[in-house]
Amino acid sequence: MDDFNIDNAIRKVPDFPKKGILFYDITSILADPPAFNYCIQKMNDLYANSSINAVAAIESRGFLFAAPFAIQNRIPLILLRKKGKLPGKTYAVKFKLEYGEDILEVHQADLNAGMNILLVDDLIATGGTIKAACELIEMGHGTVTEIFGVVGLPFLDYEKILEGYKTTTLINYQSEKTLAL
Amino acid sequence: MDDFNIDNAIRKVPDFPKKGILFYDITSILADPPAFNYCIQKMNDLYANSSINAVAAIESRGFLFAAPFAIQNRIPLILLRKKGKLPGKTYAVKFKLEYGEDILEVHQADLNAGMNILLVDDLIATGGTIKAACELIEMGHGTVTEIFGVVGLPFLDYEKILEGYKTTTLINYQSEKTLAL
Repeated sequence: MDDFNIDNAIRKVPDFPKKGILFYDITSILADPPAFNYCIQKMNDLYANSSINAVAAIESRGFLFAAPFAIQNRIPLILLRKKGKLPGKTYAVKFKLEYGEDILEVHQADLNAGMNILLVDDLIATGGTIKAACELIEMGHGTVTEIFGVVGLPFLDYEKILEGYKTTTLINYQSEKTLAL
Repeated sequence: MDDFNIDNAIRKVPDFPKKGILFYDITSILADPPAFNYCIQKMNDLYANSSINAVAAIESRGFLFAAPFAIQNRIPLILLRKKGKLPGKTYAVKFKLEYGEDILEVHQADLNAGMNILLVDDLIATGGTIKAACELIEMGHGTVTEIFGVVGLPFLDYEKILEGYKTTTLINYQSEKTLAL
């Protein structure tokens, strides 16, 4: 299990979504059952002895890893979605994107003070969306116990914006391989 | 297991996304581990003796049910996403919404002629998006073996547009309870 090479299962697409960006595509993991299973089992192993009792997923690729984790661990799955998608009463947080800003929402009913939450996304880059997700969870008095991403791009400095949170990724990519600015 | 009442786990939100519509919200299933597990186990039971060897999920709530099914059955998970989200070479199908139209895409590399596919979404209403998804899968020479939704709204006539496909839902709601037009 530990010698599985997840790098081989991640498709690298140059110039997406725009010229000069190398895109790390996790859909090729999903199409490869041993690779996808490896990711979920690694999550199970990482958090087996933690106090985590709920998992929160960032729309929409975060759903793909958080949903099997929720099922295997029999814990609630909380969705963090873009503005206007959740029908119930929500908390909302505005955050900056490269151009402009966006809003992330969570159902108020899905959060409570007893929750030790694993926050999941597929890829952690600048950490801006993840930080907004942490703020949302804390508005509902939940605790962000751990943050998980399949892929990390630490050269984009997410560790700085997520200081104080425990963040784990299965694989990191470095600057020279990912951006030709 | 069979006497689990999934209706209790589905939140009904009046006047969402607009006045007069009763919205069936499956996020309350996700927040309830026995309810979410019931759905995935029902999917496992339904298709245990089928020829299904891949599962396709419609963005983004379809991801939530298809991902655990893919993991538990060790089969490929294929994403059907809105235009511009998939970085690789895609097939695309245009389809009508209530107002205007939308485009659904799939990675060409994810499909092949040997695939007997379970197509998954959270809710089947008019069937328009599901029909577009079937066309996409067939462009890649895959076979849509079964269609699954947690919730069905048969009074919106999806059975007509999906004629020739085998469609299963865990619960159906009838007109008088859902629309006050």
